[in-house]
Amino acid sequence: MEDFRDVFDFIDGNRDLYLSWLYDACRIPSVSAQNTGIGEMAGFLEGFFRERLGTEAEILQSGGYPFVTAGVEGDVPRTILFYNHYDVQPVDPIDEWESDPFEPVERDGRIYARGAADNKGSMFARLCAVHAWRGTRGSLPLGVKFFYEGEEEIGSPNLGIATEKYPSKISCDAMLWEGGSRDIGGALHVALGVKGLAYFELRLRTANQDQHSSLAPIIPNAAWRMVRALSTIKDEDDKILIDGFYDDVRETGPEDKFFLNNMTFQEEDTKKFAGIDGFLGGVSGYELKERLLYWPTANIAGFVSGYGGPGSKTILPAEAVVKMDFRLVPDMSGERVYDLLRRHLESRGFGDIEVEMLSTKPPYRTNPDDPFVRTVIDCARDVYGVYPAVYRNMAGTTGMYDFCTAVGAPAVLVGVFNEDSRLHAPNENIFVEDYILGIKMVAAVMGRYALQGRDSG
Amino acid sequence: MEDFRDVFDFIDGNRDLYLSWLYDACRIPSVSAQNTGIGEMAGFLEGFFRERLGTEAEILQSGGYPFVTAGVEGDVPRTILFYNHYDVQPVDPIDEWESDPFEPVERDGRIYARGAADNKGSMFARLCAVHAWRGTRGSLPLGVKFFYEGEEEIGSPNLGIATEKYPSKISCDAMLWEGGSRDIGGALHVALGVKGLAYFELRLRTANQDQHSSLAPIIPNAAWRMVRALSTIKDEDDKILIDGFYDDVRETGPEDKFFLNNMTFQEEDTKKFAGIDGFLGGVSGYELKERLLYWPTANIAGFVSGYGGPGSKTILPAEAVVKMDFRLVPDMSGERVYDLLRRHLESRGFGDIEVEMLSTKPPYRTNPDDPFVRTVIDCARDVYGVYPAVYRNMAGTTGMYDFCTAVGAPAVLVGVFNEDSRLHAPNENIFVEDYILGIKMVAAVMGRYALQGRDSG
Repeated sequence: MEDFRDVFDFIDGNRDLYLSWLYDACRIPSVSAQNTGIGEMAGFLEGFFRERLGTEAEILQSGGYPFVTAGVEGDVPRTILFYNHYDVQPVDPIDEWESDPFEPVERDGRIYARGAADNKGSMFARLCAVHAWRGTRGSLPLGVKFFYEGEEEIGSPNLGIATEKYPSKISCDAMLWEGGSRDIGGALHVALGVKGLAYFELRLRTANQDQHSSLAPIIPNAAWRMVRALSTIKDEDDKILIDGFYDDVRETGPEDKFFLNNMTFQEEDTKKFAGIDGFLGGVSGYELKERLLYWPTANIAGFVSGYGGPGSKTILPAEAVVKMDFRLVPDMSGERVYDLLRRHLESRGFGDIEVEMLSTKPPYRTNPDDPFVRTVIDCARDVYGVYPAVYRNMAGTTGMYDFCTAVGAPAVLVGVFNEDSRLHAPNENIFVEDYILGIKMVAAVMGRYALQGRDSG
Repeated sequence: MEDFRDVFDFIDGNRDLYLSWLYDACRIPSVSAQNTGIGEMAGFLEGFFRERLGTEAEILQSGGYPFVTAGVEGDVPRTILFYNHYDVQPVDPIDEWESDPFEPVERDGRIYARGAADNKGSMFARLCAVHAWRGTRGSLPLGVKFFYEGEEEIGSPNLGIATEKYPSKISCDAMLWEGGSRDIGGALHVALGVKGLAYFELRLRTANQDQHSSLAPIIPNAAWRMVRALSTIKDEDDKILIDGFYDDVRETGPEDKFFLNNMTFQEEDTKKFAGIDGFLGGVSGYELKERLLYWPTANIAGFVSGYGGPGSKTILPAEAVVKMDFRLVPDMSGERVYDLLRRHLESRGFGDIEVEMLSTKPPYRTNPDDPFVRTVIDCARDVYGVYPAVYRNMAGTTGMYDFCTAVGAPAVLVGVFNEDSRLHAPNENIFVEDYILGIKMVAAVMGRYALQGRDSG
C-alpha cells in the first residue's frame, strides 16, 4: 500500500469529518417499507454530491422511489461503479433498541444506528474514499459512478428499469456491490456472487371453515395434511426429495473447491450468535462451508394453521398456509423449481395444495478469473492485514443477477459490517475501525484497479 | 303418549309464554369468558324459580361463578336432575351476525340468539316442562333438581366442587345432561356419554431467535423439525403411531355395535355443512360412525411457526408451537397419553420438544342397560315420531365424568338444537318447533320415568 500512503493519511486526518457524514446520513429515517424519509434522503445525497464532491447528482425516475446517480471522471479511461441503496429496514421492535435508531451514538468502539451497517456505512465509505483521493491528489485515479436505489429493502422491484432506461449511468468496467462483513478473525469477506431465491406460498383448504375438533376422525385437517405434504419434501438428512431438484445444480468445480478450502468460517462464533450447540447434520469444516454456500435449500419460513394463542381451543383447522424459500445455486431457476414442486405435490396426492411463487431472483456468480477480483483480494489482504475470506457466492440473495448481467462487468461484494452487526434487527451497528478501514479499502481498490488498467492497457 | 295429552295440550296452549321466557333469558349477555351478565343471569333465574315455579333457588359458591340450584318434590320418591349451564360463548365475530345476538328474533321458523341452542333453549325446555306439569296436574310426577353452573364455556373448572360441597343438591336417580341435537331426518340424538380429552402444547426452540433464511443449510429450523416430529405421530391412514396408544382402548362390544348399527347419521348433510366432498379415509356407513364415536384422535388444533403474514419474509424460524387435542375413549386417560407421547418423541430423537398438558377430562359412558336409558329412548321415539339416533357416546367432550361418577346415577344427553344450530358461532339458532317438542320430551321423560319407578318400586 506504499503507493497510497498519502491517501490513507488523509483519511486518518479526516476521521471525525467522515464519521460525521455517516452520522448525518443515519439520522434520516429512510424506511422504504414505510415510505418515510425517502425524499429527504435523496435530497441529502444530491446536496452531498454538490457540496462535498463538487459534482451534480441526477435523480432518476424508477417507477417507484427514484434512483440517485452521479459520476466523476478519472485519470484513466476505466470506470468503477459503486452500487448502494439509500433505504433502510423498519426499526421494529423499537423497544429492543438501546438508543434511538435514528440518532447514531458511539459505544465501545461501535456506531449504533439503523442503516449504519445496511448500508449507509458502505455507501459513505465509498463517498469518503472518493473525497480522500480528490483531497490528496486533486483528481481520481479512475472514473467512478454511483448508483443508488431506494427500494432494496422492499425487494428491488424496479432495479431492472435502470438497465433498460439508463444504460449510460451504469456502464462500467467493474462494480463494487454492497454487503459483506469482516469476521472476528479480522478477515474481510469478499463475495463473488449470491444465491438465487424462489419464494413460495403454499395454501391448503380442507373445509369451508374451522370445524369442532370432535370431528377429527372424519373431516380432513389442513394442518395434518400440510405436515404430511411437507414431510415428503425433505428427508432426515436434509436432502431435498423433489424429483429433478438437483438436476440443474452445477457441479462443484476445482475452483469452487479452492475457494472453499481457502475461506475462513468462524464456526464457534456463528454457533454462539445463533445460540446452538451444533450445526445441522453435525457437520463442520469444509462440509459445513460447502452446505452453506453451494447447497440449494428448501426452507420453511412460516407455517400457520389453526389456533396459536394462549391456552387451548379445540378446533380442526380448515386452512394451512406455509411460506417456503428456496435458495438457488447455478444453474437453477425459480420457475423450474416452481414446476418441480407442483409436480412433486401432485404426484404424491397433494394436488389440492395451491402453490404461488411470490418472487424469484436467479443466482449470480461473477467470473473469478477477472483481474478485478484479484485486485480486490489483494487490497483486502493489504488493508486488513489478513487474507480475506473469499466467498464464491454468498449464502444470501440480492437483485444482482439482472443488473450485473446487463452491465456485463465483474461485480464483487464488500462492506463494513461485522458478524454481530444485527442487520434488519435492533441495535444495528458497525465498528468505527471497520468504517475507517472500509474507506481505505475502497481507496486502495480505486488506486490498484486504475494502475492495473494502465498496466494492461 | 296418551297419558300426558293434557300436559302436552297445556304446553301448546302456553307456546307464546314459553317462547317469551326463553327470549328473556337470551337477552342477558351472560358471557363467562368476558365476565358480563353472570350475576344478572343468576338473579334472573332466582326470580324465575320464585315467580314461575314457586320455589326458592339457592345461589351456591363454587369458587368461581356461582352455581344456581333448586328442587321441587314430586308424587313418587324418585328424583331426576337437570344439568344445565347459564353462561354462553362470546359473540365474536360480531359482524357476521345477521341480528343482535342478545335480541332474539324469529326468522323462518328459527329463533336466533346467542345461547338459544347452547344451552338456554335446553334449560328453559326443562323449566317449562316442570311448569306445564304443575299447571296441568298441580304437582310433579317425580322430584326434580336443577343444577346450573356458570362456567361451562370456560371449561367447568369448578364443577368438581359441587360433588364435594353440595352432595345433597345433586343426589338423584337419573340425570338429563345438556347438549344434543335433532337431525334433518327428524330423529332426536340421545347420547349416553362423551369422549374424554387431553390437550397438549408442544413447544420447540432450535435457536435463540429467528435466523436469516440464508443460514438454512447449517442452522436447525424449528418448523421443519416439528413437521418431522409430527409426521411420526400418525400415518397416512390416520392410524396413531404412538407406541401403546391403543392399549387402553376398550374393545368394541356387541352392544356398542348394536348402537352404531341402529344410529342414523346424516352423511350428506354433514358433508354439506363442512363443505367437503368426502370423509377422511373415504369411509361411510358403519365405519364412518365407528371412527367418529369409537376412535381416539390425535388432532392438530394449531401449528404456528415463523412468518404467516402477507407477502414474504426470509426467516428461519427458531420456535414452533403446536396445539394438539387427543379425544379419549374408554379406558384411556390423559396422563397416560401424555407419558406415551413424551416417550414417543424422546425415542424418535425429539426429546427437545417440550410437551405440556394444558387440560384433560376422562371419557364417560353411562350404563346403557339402566331403565332410564330405555325410558328416554321410548319418549324420544314417541314425541318426535322417529326412532332416535342413540350415541353410545358423543364425539365431543364435557365435564361429565367427575360429576356423574360421583353422583352415581345414569346420565343421558338430550337437547333442542339442530345440525345447523351454529353453536359457538355467529347466528346461533334453534327451530321454534324443536323448542316446543323439547319441552314435551322432558315432560314425557318426567312422566314415564315416574311411572316406571312406581312400577318397579
